[in-house]
Amino acid sequence: MAGSNFGTLFHISTWGESHGAGLGVVIDGCPAGLSLSKDDIMPYMNRRKPGANDFTTSRKEADEIEILSGVFNGLTTGTPISMMVRNADQHSKDYDKIAGYYRPGHADYTFDEKYGFRDYRGGGRSSGRETLARVAAGAVAAKLLKEFGIEVLAYTHSIGDITLPKQVLDNKENITKEAVLNSSLFMPDKETTKKAEEYLYNIKKELNSSGGVVECIAKGLPTGLGEPVFDKLDAKLGQALFSLGAVKAVEIGSGFVASRSTGLSNNDEFILKDSKIAKATNHSGGVLGGISDGSTLVVRAAFKPTPSIAATQHTVNKNLEEIEINIEGRHDPIVVSRAVVVVEAMTALVLADLLLQNSVSRLDNLKKIYGKK
Amino acid sequence: MAGSNFGTLFHISTWGESHGAGLGVVIDGCPAGLSLSKDDIMPYMNRRKPGANDFTTSRKEADEIEILSGVFNGLTTGTPISMMVRNADQHSKDYDKIAGYYRPGHADYTFDEKYGFRDYRGGGRSSGRETLARVAAGAVAAKLLKEFGIEVLAYTHSIGDITLPKQVLDNKENITKEAVLNSSLFMPDKETTKKAEEYLYNIKKELNSSGGVVECIAKGLPTGLGEPVFDKLDAKLGQALFSLGAVKAVEIGSGFVASRSTGLSNNDEFILKDSKIAKATNHSGGVLGGISDGSTLVVRAAFKPTPSIAATQHTVNKNLEEIEINIEGRHDPIVVSRAVVVVEAMTALVLADLLLQNSVSRLDNLKKIYGKK
Amino acid sequence: MAGSNFGTLFHISTWGESHGAGLGVVIDGCPAGLSLSKDDIMPYMNRRKPGANDFTTSRKEADEIEILSGVFNGLTTGTPISMMVRNADQHSKDYDKIAGYYRPGHADYTFDEKYGFRDYRGGGRSSGRETLARVAAGAVAAKLLKEFGIEVLAYTHSIGDITLPKQVLDNKENITKEAVLNSSLFMPDKETTKKAEEYLYNIKKELNSSGGVVECIAKGLPTGLGEPVFDKLDAKLGQALFSLGAVKAVEIGSGFVASRSTGLSNNDEFILKDSKIAKATNHSGGVLGGISDGSTLVVRAAFKPTPSIAATQHTVNKNLEEIEINIEGRHDPIVVSRAVVVVEAMTALVLADLLLQNSVSRLDNLKKIYGKK
Amino acid sequence: MAGSNFGTLFHISTWGESHGAGLGVVIDGCPAGLSLSKDDIMPYMNRRKPGANDFTTSRKEADEIEILSGVFNGLTTGTPISMMVRNADQHSKDYDKIAGYYRPGHADYTFDEKYGFRDYRGGGRSSGRETLARVAAGAVAAKLLKEFGIEVLAYTHSIGDITLPKQVLDNKENITKEAVLNSSLFMPDKETTKKAEEYLYNIKKELNSSGGVVECIAKGLPTGLGEPVFDKLDAKLGQALFSLGAVKAVEIGSGFVASRSTGLSNNDEFILKDSKIAKATNHSGGVLGGISDGSTLVVRAAFKPTPSIAATQHTVNKNLEEIEINIEGRHDPIVVSRAVVVVEAMTALVLADLLLQNSVSRLDNLKKIYGKK
Repeated sequence: MAGSNFGTLFHISTWGESHGAGLGVVIDGCPAGLSLSKDDIMPYMNRRKPGANDFTTSRKEADEIEILSGVFNGLTTGTPISMMVRNADQHSKDYDKIAGYYRPGHADYTFDEKYGFRDYRGGGRSSGRETLARVAAGAVAAKLLKEFGIEVLAYTHSIGDITLPKQVLDNKENITKEAVLNSSLFMPDKETTKKAEEYLYNIKKELNSSGGVVECIAKGLPTGLGEPVFDKLDAKLGQALFSLGAVKAVEIGSGFVASRSTGLSNNDEFILKDSKIAKATNHSGGVLGGISDGSTLVVRAAFKPTPSIAATQHTVNKNLEEIEINIEGRHDPIVVSRAVVVVEAMTALVLADLLLQNSVSRLDNLKKIYGKK
Repeated sequence: MAGSNFGTLFHISTWGESHGAGLGVVIDGCPAGLSLSKDDIMPYMNRRKPGANDFTTSRKEADEIEILSGVFNGLTTGTPISMMVRNADQHSKDYDKIAGYYRPGHADYTFDEKYGFRDYRGGGRSSGRETLARVAAGAVAAKLLKEFGIEVLAYTHSIGDITLPKQVLDNKENITKEAVLNSSLFMPDKETTKKAEEYLYNIKKELNSSGGVVECIAKGLPTGLGEPVFDKLDAKLGQALFSLGAVKAVEIGSGFVASRSTGLSNNDEFILKDSKIAKATNHSGGVLGGISDGSTLVVRAAFKPTPSIAATQHTVNKNLEEIEINIEGRHDPIVVSRAVVVVEAMTALVLADLLLQNSVSRLDNLKKIYGKK
Repeated sequence: MAGSNFGTLFHISTWGESHGAGLGVVIDGCPAGLSLSKDDIMPYMNRRKPGANDFTTSRKEADEIEILSGVFNGLTTGTPISMMVRNADQHSKDYDKIAGYYRPGHADYTFDEKYGFRDYRGGGRSSGRETLARVAAGAVAAKLLKEFGIEVLAYTHSIGDITLPKQVLDNKENITKEAVLNSSLFMPDKETTKKAEEYLYNIKKELNSSGGVVECIAKGLPTGLGEPVFDKLDAKLGQALFSLGAVKAVEIGSGFVASRSTGLSNNDEFILKDSKIAKATNHSGGVLGGISDGSTLVVRAAFKPTPSIAATQHTVNKNLEEIEINIEGRHDPIVVSRAVVVVEAMTALVLADLLLQNSVSRLDNLKKIYGKK
Repeated sequence: MAGSNFGTLFHISTWGESHGAGLGVVIDGCPAGLSLSKDDIMPYMNRRKPGANDFTTSRKEADEIEILSGVFNGLTTGTPISMMVRNADQHSKDYDKIAGYYRPGHADYTFDEKYGFRDYRGGGRSSGRETLARVAAGAVAAKLLKEFGIEVLAYTHSIGDITLPKQVLDNKENITKEAVLNSSLFMPDKETTKKAEEYLYNIKKELNSSGGVVECIAKGLPTGLGEPVFDKLDAKLGQALFSLGAVKAVEIGSGFVASRSTGLSNNDEFILKDSKIAKATNHSGGVLGGISDGSTLVVRAAFKPTPSIAATQHTVNKNLEEIEINIEGRHDPIVVSRAVVVVEAMTALVLADLLLQNSVSRLDNLKKIYGKK
């Protein structure tokens, strides 16, 4: 299956370049009967939109999504849902300069090597703008998950060294969407947000950029999501999050800490809670053996600093000359805040796909559908 | 595609349970004309085999691989390569006790929830023994990669807090396979191995277990491997490594460190080396925009401590009673050393698949094959 | 993989309904470096367009294709090619009547049963207009095939009982595209076309419709296309052609005649022709063991009569009442002539995909690409 | 996805050569909880076995299937079901002669061209013996379908010109499995069987072979099976049946007859039967718009004559010399009778896969599974 496709049953195909005619996605496999309109999609698109704070590019993007198919009388029909955003604000000429050299940290060089040439305008297909199509699809997935009581929520976990306080992270199930949206950096803590803002002001002043970490949780998950062996819940999350250009690390639950722990401290004891099986702790991050265990899903993605910086950099051009460059244009000193909703979207896409797949894992489930005993 | 399948062109299907008749794998898509025999597979199988040191289970596993199809006169035929290992040392009765309760940190509970019941003998399909089939397939992938000058090498990066020294990690391209194989823990440094051995002796004495980290590098990679957007090299590695039951985190290149860095420090400058484009540093870990950049691939996987420990643990049984358990049997205090070759195998599988996929990404490549201009 | 997706390497996702906002296709996997523009697509679209003769609906369809991504400076970039046609002439109200009953021979009933409801406007997703997206994709596939000297050509083989004369069919390799395009029914024989026209005038007068057969040939195929076992060339053609709503039968080469033949008469002897291996006859239709054998590919698809007819029909409505209906609107008495280019497109899509897949079937081919010996 | 894989959710991977160590199949995606044992598989294997009459090769094949995984305590576990047959009667030396030349009608030439060489022993992967693995998998699919009241039954429709009488074909829903199994040629009519036997005796005496047609029906199908657009029920059947090496044509319902019919005669009127929607006729063969319509599924596959005949034939050898050959060994004068169960198996595999896929097409179905309203 070609690389711009993702998902087995809740399947998406994305397309588009930063400065082409537009970007879009086709969802094939969304069940029929889901109420869906543009209004379900736009709040997600808007969270990805630049301009929410001083740290995101001032590029003006309308990003009005159009639903082209698969919805009739307000309900999904079970056939492909095609969605598209037209590109509007295209300063393609700004990018002519970068056609001839390779920006450090960008995919310019590897695209040229792989395909023989590249659409250099704004990064083309490798632009962060490509994630817009994922967010649109993720909004549909999130709408579907809501029907099953599943809520996915991502937020900024850290920017540089500035991390959410322990008491917030220890009670992450209490983080509200409101608290996330109220922060200019989608960091559900006022003081941490303020510190991070100051840090970013300085970074920006230095024509530099910063990395950070996004954390995502999902509550209300039924047990059973995840297909052994290669399509485990954590494996598909791993693929989904590493498919974001700037992600350099992914953790589930206790993550790297687990590697420095012992079995006694890391194992989550099973207990009874309201006469149901639960876990005393959640080092597993909600996944055991690649299958959702009924606890809250916890996943983190570490983003590298925005590679586009205004400071002078050393590189090589296509004539094989070493040169000094200054990348012009409007660039974010941090990718993390805009990536929050992308991580949420990718997580929702993985969960929706595995929710569908898990439906057919048991004969008795199938019999419920076909009315057999 | 069902969950025990992996890869688009170098496609594998694995099967088998810890205590069933056997385990195996079918590779569909290995190109015709590759020299292959059992002797190419067994060295990989042996590295996974327990008993290499005092820290791995004394379960006796012959693990003799049989190649059942796809090879004729010593060469792969282009048709499916089926390989199988018969299970021999099956103390199934040992496991009858665990049928009725849920071991902390294991997939017992989630399998029961997903499928309605489970093959409880030795973990069934969720046993670490399942990775045996991956190692066999990975050995074939590694053989294929060698034809293109690509070498994949994994080793133990850390056990608990004990990590390979900086000078080893800073020169990881000089780590030799010999140095890895000479260490009882596949840790290419004598002193670190010794320290880790002592640590494990103590952990074992305490009926406890330890986590650790495996690092894997690949040298000689051509540029261009990785399919944007979702089948990026790092995305497929993420899926491949998180598909290992005990992995809780994966890093590429600078990994989490990147999230605390700035663009200026994390960007790898392009330079000229022998008149060819190279990078001054390798924070990217050999991947830019999801495509191999010609540098050494560097990936790390963090493993949680073996959940099977002899110490008393609290859990719940199927009658919904809270109980104390002591898991009997022979269990490793560390999963990492045996997992080293599994990480190497999974990396090789990903690279082989992407090597094939990249072959058809350019019209001029195709014309070379079909003799057209 | 969801149902509106097709192809492994030359992968397409189609979307859209007859009376929605539009229809389109995303091609993921077209190799980089292929010259492509709207002018390559439109001639194919125009052949599918109604109005070429008196037997196709007078519905006015502009069907102007827009290439939205994947092409830069006139060349394919290797990333997804998204193409779209906006729906223009939407007399949705004409269709309100059919919302409440099930047209015989149409998918109204089965869509309602499968999805719980349906987009009833003009057949929605099950409309023949859906094939428009396939034709656009097929035009790209055909452009790619041309680079390798492969030409695909479809034509009307028969309409009702009126069939191309034996001397034309016995020399099908000499049929020219010009002869096909010169016939109002894409039937490369003037007299047969005339007879068929007369037949259709009468059928139309009777408010009835007719079935027919499309034949498709491909010349210049290299040997080796087709992936044993399930993705054989004929198997993928079978899927591709039966995926057209009105197709009820598919034949390769001698087809049903083979079932009434003997081995001695049906086997194609191998001979030498210009010192190369060739076949004395071509009962195989260019496929042996599911792999192209170097001869001309010959495939036929039998289409049922257009189910939409103006004559009174008996059926059932959603209130479970038996009723008599008269389907209004503008309908073709024959689907075959417009289907010719669709069959050609589907054949091209299958061939392009298998051309790419075959490229990686041999180690020596791969070595040519990566410059290894 | 590689070529020896089939199915999206009920996924199979087959492997093995005629004269290698054995043949087998891995089923990934069979729901958990299905009662399954070797006894469910062997009756299918036995129907494929040669020696049931004088027209099948006297090659002695034990074909004892072994279930290697995926079944525990008599129930499928939801994890991969691996099954294998060891090859026993391997007269590989018989085949050394054919290594150097290309048998007409066989895949010898195309395999050599595609892969550079071939396993020439008994046809290797292209041998009819390869279908054994499909039959084993099909038996599991049939067992699953039975749980939903679906019965699949194939039988010989014609051998050469000798066809089942009209009254049998007009009442095909009354054909019993018993009647099929009672015929040496799996032809559910005594007189026709006798005529066909006589015809085959003569064909065999002439060192020649005959083609024929297999018909397959499925009763008890729910409406809704089939995924628009490319994975329609008929499209997947087309792929499945054309994936059999000797099949040259496939028909659904009225098939080619439809192409010579009119809309008025070919359309199946909807009527009420026991207050439920039904069809007055079944020209559609149970499929409308690619989706099962609740009527009996009817599909036919035309097989070419066995290409291996004892009569002298003309061909070319690898030294590019034209030669006369006599293929020795034990060959069937007819492939059809043994292919009957293979057609049944492939149909069952398609139906099982689409049954699973259809389960997730509606939101209300999913809610039944997850207990939501």
